[in-house]
This record gives sequence, structure tokens and C-alpha cells, in this order.
Amino acid sequence: MEGAAMKRSPDAPANAPVDFTCPVPLSNYERILLAHGSGGTLTHRLIREVFAAAFRNDYLELQHDGAILPLDKGLWAFSTDSYVVRPIIFPGGTIGDLAVNGTVNDLAMCGAKPRYLSASFILEEGLEISELCAVVESMRRAALASGITIVTGDTKVVDRGKGDKMFITTSGIGIIPEGIVIDPRSAKPGDQILVSGTIADHGIAVMSVREGLEFETAIRSDTAPLNSLAEQILNVSSNIHVLRDPTRGGLATTLNEIAQQSNIGLFVRESSIPVDPAVASACEILGFDPLFVANEGKMVAFVGAEDADRVLAAMRNHPLGQHAAVIGEVTAEHPAEVVMESSIGGKRILGMLSGEQLPRIC
Amino acid sequence: MEGAAMKRSPDAPANAPVDFTCPVPLSNYERILLAHGSGGTLTHRLIREVFAAAFRNDYLELQHDGAILPLDKGLWAFSTDSYVVRPIIFPGGTIGDLAVNGTVNDLAMCGAKPRYLSASFILEEGLEISELCAVVESMRRAALASGITIVTGDTKVVDRGKGDKMFITTSGIGIIPEGIVIDPRSAKPGDQILVSGTIADHGIAVMSVREGLEFETAIRSDTAPLNSLAEQILNVSSNIHVLRDPTRGGLATTLNEIAQQSNIGLFVRESSIPVDPAVASACEILGFDPLFVANEGKMVAFVGAEDADRVLAAMRNHPLGQHAAVIGEVTAEHPAEVVMESSIGGKRILGMLSGEQLPRIC
Repeated sequence: MEGAAMKRSPDAPANAPVDFTCPVPLSNYERILLAHGSGGTLTHRLIREVFAAAFRNDYLELQHDGAILPLDKGLWAFSTDSYVVRPIIFPGGTIGDLAVNGTVNDLAMCGAKPRYLSASFILEEGLEISELCAVVESMRRAALASGITIVTGDTKVVDRGKGDKMFITTSGIGIIPEGIVIDPRSAKPGDQILVSGTIADHGIAVMSVREGLEFETAIRSDTAPLNSLAEQILNVSSNIHVLRDPTRGGLATTLNEIAQQSNIGLFVRESSIPVDPAVASACEILGFDPLFVANEGKMVAFVGAEDADRVLAAMRNHPLGQHAAVIGEVTAEHPAEVVMESSIGGKRILGMLSGEQLPRIC
Repeated sequence: MEGAAMKRSPDAPANAPVDFTCPVPLSNYERILLAHGSGGTLTHRLIREVFAAAFRNDYLELQHDGAILPLDKGLWAFSTDSYVVRPIIFPGGTIGDLAVNGTVNDLAMCGAKPRYLSASFILEEGLEISELCAVVESMRRAALASGITIVTGDTKVVDRGKGDKMFITTSGIGIIPEGIVIDPRSAKPGDQILVSGTIADHGIAVMSVREGLEFETAIRSDTAPLNSLAEQILNVSSNIHVLRDPTRGGLATTLNEIAQQSNIGLFVRESSIPVDPAVASACEILGFDPLFVANEGKMVAFVGAEDADRVLAAMRNHPLGQHAAVIGEVTAEHPAEVVMESSIGGKRILGMLSGEQLPRIC
């Protein structure tokens, strides 16, 4: 770990990542070279002085072709996502915490407790080491916050003009506690539909910085790990049928997916859907419908009616669920379709996102 | 699965991927659009008609945020790699079978039996659907050949000029049978060093097509799954201490890594290292040292001397190990260094790859 300044605070748990300071220049280089992806000496220094220094744990120490993990018998969730968001640093987050939180959330939406994460980097030649370090540091913090451990990884470098600073792919595994069955096909007529907070924050935060827009109130991405919120609601109810985080395609797309997979109808009230006023104004200015804009720290839960109040209270009791709301319910009518009652009382079918309104939002 | 022609052969095992025919045009499009990465309707069609149609299995059918896997208690290997090889189709393989075999091999080098794979795609706007399908089909075949199941995935699209046709990241998990301990830190003085076949085939195959070179004998990539070869040698010996596949950086870099991690010296004889004559000539013409050129279907094994003959015989008995050879041994002298006796008898220290000779080889 020579070259990277590190300090372990006295109350840090054994084996936790220690404070990480970016080693700029990294072996005399301020920027990523093709040779950092060669597999040779520069790759080894990059791994040792940046990735291993920031994520430090016994699994990574081994430097094997993979991590060796002692797993318990049971049902495990396994998920992967690539992240290509532009810019890589935006209000409220970076491509790095997005990549950690995104896979943590996919696991949590399966009802799993996130355990182990892999992280694979595709870097563009010329990327500044300091930018890479800022992203890596945000990943270190995000992993600590959700309790997941980054145990293995990879780094490739592509020539200038064949990438865009950096892309990150994370994969994760997490164990599903016995008795938990979350399945997108199991929404039932009568289920109440809950959303854990305001929608469209992430997409608008990224879009506004990309377009150079400034609003009176700063709009920040909602990127956050949802595993403790999921755990909190699963603790108070055994009638949670479906969980999903409405990322790309937004809330409307997620609702349509579940309506189709469970083959039930959904009825939602537009006026019940929480939207931050600053985000609502930004959406008007930019011409976006918040229902189709990505979220990165929100969940939708389908809950048996008898437990809806209890789950709503548990959500609101969590820092990430303070603005949770019941936004509608499952019906036996119009299967596979989502019907929305607009704020002024009319009803219409709410479709899935078609086309693309916000490329490279995650 | 509408739109994709599929046929299950009568003797296919239940739940095996069925024959896959590329749906070109895909919903009227011959090429990938940004909207194929939106998360909306075009993403759903791409997943349904290409990825799910080719990889079809019960885990993918669920369309959850992740796959739900019943795992046994024990030690599991977990590995990930990103693939950025250029061109995406080359003599002997594609970026797709490289991505499947590469992670299968990393698991096998941990002594694990590969079980489940994730595949995440970063596509460049404008990629031809037919090229994507050719890669996906090669992944389907590679997964079948190694027995790993592709259970979850993701697709992102980046704007034209911000990627290079396609990048793929795979992650995999595999179970390590009880009693198997493969560890890069456990090479011991006296161990014999075996290589499973000719070196440098992959790097030279990619390089020659990239440079438009033609040789009398066609040079093909050696991309192949090493799990059954690893299993075969682990069945005949309990004295296999280290396994590793010498990919980026080539055999020389791999040997240096193990010398450093085990803190022992290595002595290798250049004349014992198998190199295909066509590859050797191509290396001379291109100015490459085959010791530093990537392999994608070869392994290095460090074996207790008493079992070396038996392991060598087992290797040669496998279709992927016919040209296996003992190339040297571990010594207590010059720890962390690799000493090579050249074909004409001189000795020199063999270093790790420094700089970059073959960018984007995998």
C-alpha cells in the first residue's frame, strides 16, 4: 500500500476500509494511460494504490482470480448493472455511489440483504487520476453505508475517444432471509401501492447540470442504499408482495412492468404522488413528465391492504422514507394496464416510457 | 418471445437454451438506438427478443431485479471481468465467448465449479443488431459448453462516438468442492510448473486481424473454458497448489505475480515453453515476445513434484491440454523473481510486462 496515505481511526471496526487519500500523481502519471490496462506493472500499481487502498479488506488482499466467500445455504439474489451516467460527478452523487447503491438496491428489491459486490471499471485513456479517486472514494463510502463489501474487480482501459471518462459495472449477491418472498408476479387485487418518497430527483439533478441550468433550490440526486428501508418494512409486515426501485423509465415504467408481470390492473392517483416543488418546476421548464424520470433512492411497494398503514408508518419512520405515500391500488379490472386519475379528475391509461427522453441517466 | 424464431431440438435437456435466430430487423430497427437503453418499451423488446430468447432459462424468466438462486453452504468463488476487445469478432472467437470463458476460467482457477453468470452490455448507438446477435449467439454456445447458466443481466446504450460497438462485463459464481485449496500464495520450493498448451495464440490472432496481416497458417484465438480441464487435474492430484490463466500480460506476468505472492523463486526453461510455429513467426514479424502475449484458454499449474507426471498426463489426456508441458520449477532462491534459461543456455531475470504492447486484447 506504499504511496497511498491511509489512516485507520481508532474506533473503526477491524477490517473496515480505512481513510483513503488519492495518490496523485500515481507513479508519475496524472492521467490514465493505456498501459494502466495492460495487466502489467502499471495495472498492479493502479490496483494497489487506488482500488485496494480504498476498498481494503481480506477478500481483496488475496489477489486471486476471484474472491473466495463462505456462503450459507439458502436463497441468494444475484444482480448486475452497468453505469454510464454523464457527467460522472453530479449534484448529490457520482457514477461510483450510483454503481454501488444501484446494485445494493436491486438486491434489496429481491428481499435480500446485500453482502458482496464486484466492481469492474472501463476507463478512457486520459481520465484524470484525481477524478478516478473521487469516484472510488464515493464508492468506498457508499459500500460502508449499505454494509456491502467490495470483494473483487477488474480494470480495462480504452483508447481516447472510444469511451467517456469511465463506465462502471457492479454485480452483487445477497442472502434472502427465510420466509421472505418478493416476486414481481405476485401483486394481488386489493394491494395498496406505496412509494417511499418524491420522484424524479435523480434524473432532474443530472439533467440540470448537464444542461447548465440553475434553479433557485439546488436539486440533488436521491442516490441512496434502500436495503435498511426495505428491511424495516419487511420487519413489520409479511404481506409485502412486490418491491421495485423505479430507475430508468421512471415510476410509470415500473408500474407497467408490474401490471404486466402480475397480470393485474393498477389504479393510481396523480395527486398522491410526491414530487418536490423544485423538481416539478424544473420538469415543466425542461418539458419532462416526472413519472418517466429516473429515481435512484426510491422504492415502490405492493402491500396487502390490511398492512398498508403499518408499512407506510414504518417507511415514514426511516430517514429515506419521510415523504412516503400511498399512491393507488391493484384492481382486478383492466389487467396489465395502469390507469391514472389526473390531478383534475380525468382518467387515462399510463403507458411505459417509449423512445428516450434522458439518455445516459444512470 | 414473439418475433424470435426458436426451435428446441428433441434431445435438448429441459430448460436448456434453444436454438436462437437473430430477429433482424428488431422492431423495425437494424441498428441499436439510444432508446434501446431507455428502460422503456425498446429496452424490453431488446431483452425479450435477443437476450432472453438466446439465453432462455427459468432464472431469466422471472424478470426480477436480480436472479434468485438456491445455493449450498460452502466456499464460493466470485469473479468479474470487463471485455473491451477490438475487433469484437476475430479468428476463433468473439467478445462474447471471451466474456463467458474469461469469467468461467477465473472461477476454475480458484478451484471452483462455475455455476451462474451475469452479463452486462454497454452498446454503442449504431451497432448493427446482426452483430449484436452474432455475439449473443457465441455467448449462448460458450455458456452451454462450460455448463454455466446466464441468469441476470443489464443493457446500457451510449451515444455514437462514446463507446466502441460493445463492451461486455460478466460476473460469475461457482462452488469450490470441499478439500480444494488453490491459493496464489501457496507455491512451494520443489513445485513443478506446468502450462497446459501453446502460448500467445489469442493475442496474435487478434493482433493479426487488427493489423490486416495474413499468415500461411490461420492463427486462431485459443478462447476456451478451462473448467473441465481444471476438474480433470484436480481429480488426479491433491497437490495442486496454484492455478492461473495467463491472460493480459502473458505467461511472464502471471509467473511474476505468483513468485511475488508466494514469495518464492521460479526457474523456467524457455525451450520447454510450447509455442505454435505460426505464432512464433508472427511474433517475430510483429516484434512481440510471446511470453508477454495474452492467452484465453491456457492455464499454469504449480504442482507438488511427486504428482507432476500424473497431472501432466491428465492434462495431455484432455482436448485442451494436448500440448501441455513442464516448463520449470519453484526454488527457494531469488524469492519473488523469475529466472529464465534461454534456448541458447544463458540465464536472465524475466520481469513483468511494463508499458503496453497490445491494447484492448480482451
